[in-house]
Order: sequence, then structure tokens, then C-alpha cells
Amino acid sequence: MMGTNNDTANNTRVANQKSAANPVALLVPDMPPMEEIVPFLVEIDSNKWYSNFGPLCLAFEKQLKTHFFSELPPDSKRMVSCSNGTAAIELALIALNLPAGARVLLPAFTFPATATAVVRVGLTPVFADVDEKSWQLTPDIARHLLASSRADVILPVAALGMPHHALAWQKFSRETGIPVVIDAAAALGAQDTAPGITVCYSLHATKSFGVGEGGVIVAADDSMGERIRQMANFGFSAGVIVHAGGNYKLSEYHAAVGLAQFKRLPLLQKRRELLRKGYQEYSDALLPHFDFQSLPDNYWGEAPVVPLRDSRFYGAAAICLKRNAAIDVETLVHHLADRGIQTRRWYCPSLQYHPAFSQVETFGLQGDHFMAVTEFLQTHVVGIPYHSALRRHDIRHVISSVLASVENKCISIDAV
Amino acid sequence: MMGTNNDTANNTRVANQKSAANPVALLVPDMPPMEEIVPFLVEIDSNKWYSNFGPLCLAFEKQLKTHFFSELPPDSKRMVSCSNGTAAIELALIALNLPAGARVLLPAFTFPATATAVVRVGLTPVFADVDEKSWQLTPDIARHLLASSRADVILPVAALGMPHHALAWQKFSRETGIPVVIDAAAALGAQDTAPGITVCYSLHATKSFGVGEGGVIVAADDSMGERIRQMANFGFSAGVIVHAGGNYKLSEYHAAVGLAQFKRLPLLQKRRELLRKGYQEYSDALLPHFDFQSLPDNYWGEAPVVPLRDSRFYGAAAICLKRNAAIDVETLVHHLADRGIQTRRWYCPSLQYHPAFSQVETFGLQGDHFMAVTEFLQTHVVGIPYHSALRRHDIRHVISSVLASVENKCISIDAV
Repeated sequence: MMGTNNDTANNTRVANQKSAANPVALLVPDMPPMEEIVPFLVEIDSNKWYSNFGPLCLAFEKQLKTHFFSELPPDSKRMVSCSNGTAAIELALIALNLPAGARVLLPAFTFPATATAVVRVGLTPVFADVDEKSWQLTPDIARHLLASSRADVILPVAALGMPHHALAWQKFSRETGIPVVIDAAAALGAQDTAPGITVCYSLHATKSFGVGEGGVIVAADDSMGERIRQMANFGFSAGVIVHAGGNYKLSEYHAAVGLAQFKRLPLLQKRRELLRKGYQEYSDALLPHFDFQSLPDNYWGEAPVVPLRDSRFYGAAAICLKRNAAIDVETLVHHLADRGIQTRRWYCPSLQYHPAFSQVETFGLQGDHFMAVTEFLQTHVVGIPYHSALRRHDIRHVISSVLASVENKCISIDAV
Repeated sequence: MMGTNNDTANNTRVANQKSAANPVALLVPDMPPMEEIVPFLVEIDSNKWYSNFGPLCLAFEKQLKTHFFSELPPDSKRMVSCSNGTAAIELALIALNLPAGARVLLPAFTFPATATAVVRVGLTPVFADVDEKSWQLTPDIARHLLASSRADVILPVAALGMPHHALAWQKFSRETGIPVVIDAAAALGAQDTAPGITVCYSLHATKSFGVGEGGVIVAADDSMGERIRQMANFGFSAGVIVHAGGNYKLSEYHAAVGLAQFKRLPLLQKRRELLRKGYQEYSDALLPHFDFQSLPDNYWGEAPVVPLRDSRFYGAAAICLKRNAAIDVETLVHHLADRGIQTRRWYCPSLQYHPAFSQVETFGLQGDHFMAVTEFLQTHVVGIPYHSALRRHDIRHVISSVLASVENKCISIDAV
């Protein structure tokens, strides 16, 4: 299970999944079984078309529009499928046609692919600290930084699947003239779109709605959507390359998995609703020890920063130790691992600690370069199991183990 | 059928597939049917692992080594699978760790993805003319150009699936110290590898051995292979990004298709052998009108420039009108379309005519910037049907139609 996550897979820090009576995995993809994919493979056999926006891909895009982007008019060209969530960000940035080295402002508290995408398309990443409440780069923070510095694109992240106010970013972009691309990798179903801004989603297996590897972009407007579609296919337009793109196409096989996934959408929704409610029962018990002000109310019982578009599509559960907590995050991770509970230090280390980004300019909220909130979050946030295969007793086990750890009622097996 | 080709898909110039009694498609992928993929989907269901070099991907890589790269020692780290053939080139170039803007010499007679890959990784493409005999950028041409100019990487192309002398490029690279990356997109099974040089292959559905979308790289050495594997997964090494990569991973679903494809390898080989022999019968008849000196003898009956590693894995059939031909290539394409035969003007227009590359520096063979051979080839070469679904009567129909056209024994339907 540990290797199934796009974001981390034996790469970022992962709690050891120790032997335990009842091991609880952090993430278990909820994907269509073979039998449900077969009818679409039969279609592929008949079409003999395997990539390049084939019939299954176009049918899948239609379903995406119907179920996740019904705000788009039928003839809209803003939505484009692609090969993965990182590809979605790269395509969006390429389609902005910026000069090489243009500055892209993004939060330091995110998965590294947000920054690798910027580097890979030849632009310059600039890191911002995030809001204490939402754990995100907000329009207010961007405005604050723009008073003393320059950015050519703003690339906010729907951190851990928590959505942004699309309309607030739309307003920001209209007022400043700066393009906004939201990395909503983990927020399909949760993050709204808005005309004038671009939103990128991942369809990786570990996301709430997965197809294996896949991505989808809703561009700022039709013309950008058309450019993105060209860039996904090398940059071809009427037989010639007008601007260099790449091969970012969603294959017919992945579209087949996606179409099978849509057939079981009601099942996914039901399971995720149970999951959400299962955790919600315990929010009162956790609140004395953890900060959840950043998490949406329909999940954790607190006032949301931004409401989820659909409360069922919340991607990950992360808890943040309070400043005065009796234990540190490594101890918590260790205690939970002793109880067979897999965790992950999401977005740890934060971007400024990756060797590849050590020279990147940083902006704190106090006018200096120290990103205080990011520093705090990367040493206090931990992801706990959140996926539709969890049963009620699993959730109870997770919560009681978390509480026992933080209330110092447990002793690490290693320490005995 | 027309949209199934990675290389062109309703983008480059394609002959109209007119209604005809016996339409003959240019390319029909030979892919495993649903029933043969199912056992591997069952494995995915059981593993619950969907990407990130999962168990099916590793098993597929093992098969690739066994059947296509048996020259690699068992513990070699040089071979890495990836998401597509263009990704393979991008990864190889990224892993060379060159400074931004480094100059990459490639032939102007190729599919545009060779050049888009260079641009997308932040390097500077430089176009060379090609050898009249092999239609390729050869070590001799590279040496000739290096006498008056600079290149930091040489990126030769196995044009239309015709292989290079791997050892000649190995020698070149050792002597000059310049890295060589061969774009052998259409030459899996045909193009040899050699220590010290890097070779990139595509596994697109339209290639001789396809998995839908996929690619494979054999790096110059183990250390480069390891870097490529990291770069394919964002650049992660021990939990942190050391150099910005991307998401270039082959998903488990595509690995499943690949494993199914290997089960039917003997069938593919048998079909492709029949195909090769089917065309070989007619090589004498075509020789008075077309140039084939660039095509391997075990296919067209002429002395090969470079022998194919495995004659069954020849990717495409292309014929080149002689300088004194009675008709031009557009007329030939038109005549064949009238007879229901689909063709494609491979690599037309050549790179210098794409708006995205209009500012790229060019090098001809006469010491000036005019690429005479490329100019000739892009206006005289045409691809004719070549795939394992062709029957003997299809091949006869293609050849007799080609001969009728060039011998002026036919009149276009439109001209009647």
C-alpha cells in the first residue's frame, strides 16, 4: 500500500508500518475492479484507437464535465484531460506563454511537484509562507508580497485537498492582471472553478476519484483551453508546431478506467460519506489537542475557511499538534506506528529544504524571508488514515491511538 | 485508424482516406485483446498498486530486458521504463544535467517531438541536414559540423525506425566527450544499444511493440539510469528533490498491457515476418522508380546502411521518389488515396518549417545553412501501409497502385 501514493511512494517520509494485530493503511485506492473495466477494453478492441484524444478519452471528458464541472457550458473548451496532475500544472504554465524565467509565486507548504512543474517549464519558482488558518497561499498573502516584490503567475495550492475561494482568486487576477493557476491536485470535487483562473486536478489512484495516472485542467478561458489541448499533443496546430508542447495525453486505457470509475460514482460517494461521518464523530475529542481550524466544518466540526464544493470529496485527513502539545510529531508518528497505524508527514520537508530548491527566494509574512507558518506546519502536521476501505472500528482505533499518544497514556513498544 | 498514430494524429499531413472497395490503412496497431489483458488486471486488483514502479511495471521491465536488451547484465540499472517516447528523450536530456541553453544537435528530418523534447527541458535545438543514404544524422556529419560549430549533446534519430551503428556513436562519444542520445522511437527491436550512449524508444500503440502509451530508455551507464529513474519520479532521492524531475512513470495499467503483449510476442514476430516478406517480393519492381538505399536489405533487397538487430522489428515503410520521377509526391498521395490507400508524408514538413522552430540555427552539408537532403526528402518521401493486419492482396494492391501511379498508368478520379 505504501507505494501506491503518487505524492510520496517510498520517497517522502513515511511512518514504518509495523506489524500489528490490526494494521491500518494511510491510503487504499478505491479503484474499479477488472470486471468493471472489461466492457471499456472491449470498446478499445473495437475502436483500435489507443491514445491521442480517442473516443474513450472524449467520453471520459464528457463525464468529467457532467459530474464535476457542470458550471461549464456544453460548448466550453476550457476543460482538457491529461496524463497526470503534474502534467496538468506544466501544461497550464506552458499555455500562459510566459518569457523564460518568469516568476511563479507558490506556497512552500506543498508537495514538491508543484515546484518541479515550475522548474521543468523553464520558469522561476518563488516560495511564499502560508496562512495559519487555511495552510494556504491566499489572495491576501499574494497582495502583501506583491507590494515589495514581483510575480508573473500565482500558483496557490489546495493544500491536502482543501479548496480555495475560486471567486476570490478570480477577483485577484482581474484586479492585478496576474494569471492564477490553482494546483488542486487532491481536490477534484472539492475545488470550484471560475472563469478567468485555471485549476489543475490529479486523477491519481490515491485521489478521491482516481483513474491510475491522470489529470484534468479547467483553463481560464476557451482560448487557453485550446492551447492546452495543443500543448498536450506536442504543440500541433493544423499540422505544424506553433509552440513546443509535449506528450501529455491521457491514453484510452486510462480513459477506460475512468469511465468504469464513473459507473461506480454513487458507490464512491456513499463510501466517502460514511468515511467523513465516521471521523466527524470524534472531532470534539480531538479538538483539545489538535488544530483543525483549517479543515472544513462538514468534516471536522469547525467553521470552514472555504466550504467544500462536495463534502464527500475531501482528499486527506491531517491533524496539527498544538504549540503546547505534550509530545512532538515524531513521537506521535512512532506511537501510531507501534499500533499498526500508517501515517505520513505530508509536505515534510517543506519546499525550502529540498536541495533542488535551496536557492529559491522565500517570502515570510513579516516582511522578511522566514516562513514561520510553514516551519511550524512542517514540524506539526501529520496525515492519518483516510480512505473508503476504513471501517468504523479502524477509525475508532486511529482516534483512540492518537488520543492515547497525545495524552501520554501510552508508551512506545520500543521504549518498554 | 487515422487518429491512432502518436506521431501525427490528425495533425501532420495525412492523405484523405477516401471511400474505396478495399481501403488500406497506413497503420493498424497490433495490441493484445481484452481477454489477454484481464489476468494482469486481476493482479492489479490484488496488489492495489497503480503506478510508481509497481510490481507489474518491474515485471514488465524484466521482460523488456530479456527480450530486447539481453546485452544488459542482470544487475544493470541502465534500463528504465517511462510514460512515453517523448518522455524518454526528455528524461535522458534532464539526466545529463546540462546548463540551461546547452546546444543539442539533431536532424531536421524527424518527427517534431525530437525537437519539442529539447525545448521543453530548457535546451537549445540546432538542426543538421542528414545523410543522403541513411536519411540520418551520422557520426560523420556531426564531426563535420563540430569543426565549425559547437554542440553539447548529439541527438541522432533512428529515422522511420532505421537503426544507427550504436558502436559508431559510442566511438564518437568517447573521442569527442560529447554525450549521445539516440531517439530510436520507432526502433525497439531494431536499434542496438552500447555502453556510453543513451537510446530512447517509444512503446506507443502504433509502434512494432506497443503498450498504448509508453517508453523505455537505456542509459549510457548505471549512474545515469539511476538518475533517470529518480527524474521520472519528480527527482526524489531519499525523500528529497535533488534535481527537478517530473511525473514520467509508466502506470501499472500500461505495464499490464505490456505484459500481455509479451505473452503474444511469438505471434507478433510471426506476423511481422510475414509482413516483411510480403513486401520484399515487390522490391525489384519498385526499385526503378524509388530510392530505397536507406532501407535495410532484409526488407527491401538493397544493401543496408546498418543491419537491423531483429529484421521483424522494422517500424514503417517509406518510399522516396527519384529526382527524375514522372510525378510529384502530392500526385502519388492523391492517386493512392483514390484507390483507398492511406499514406503519410512522414516528417513533412521538416523541422525548420514549423513556426516554433523558425529561429533555430541550421547546418547543411556544404558548409552553409541550406539542408539540401532534408529539403529533398521532405518533398519526396511518403509512407505506405505497413502493419501486421495487411494481407498479401493488400500489399499487392498497394504496390500495383504505387507502380500504376508512378508509371502514369492511372488517372486521378478527380481528374476524370
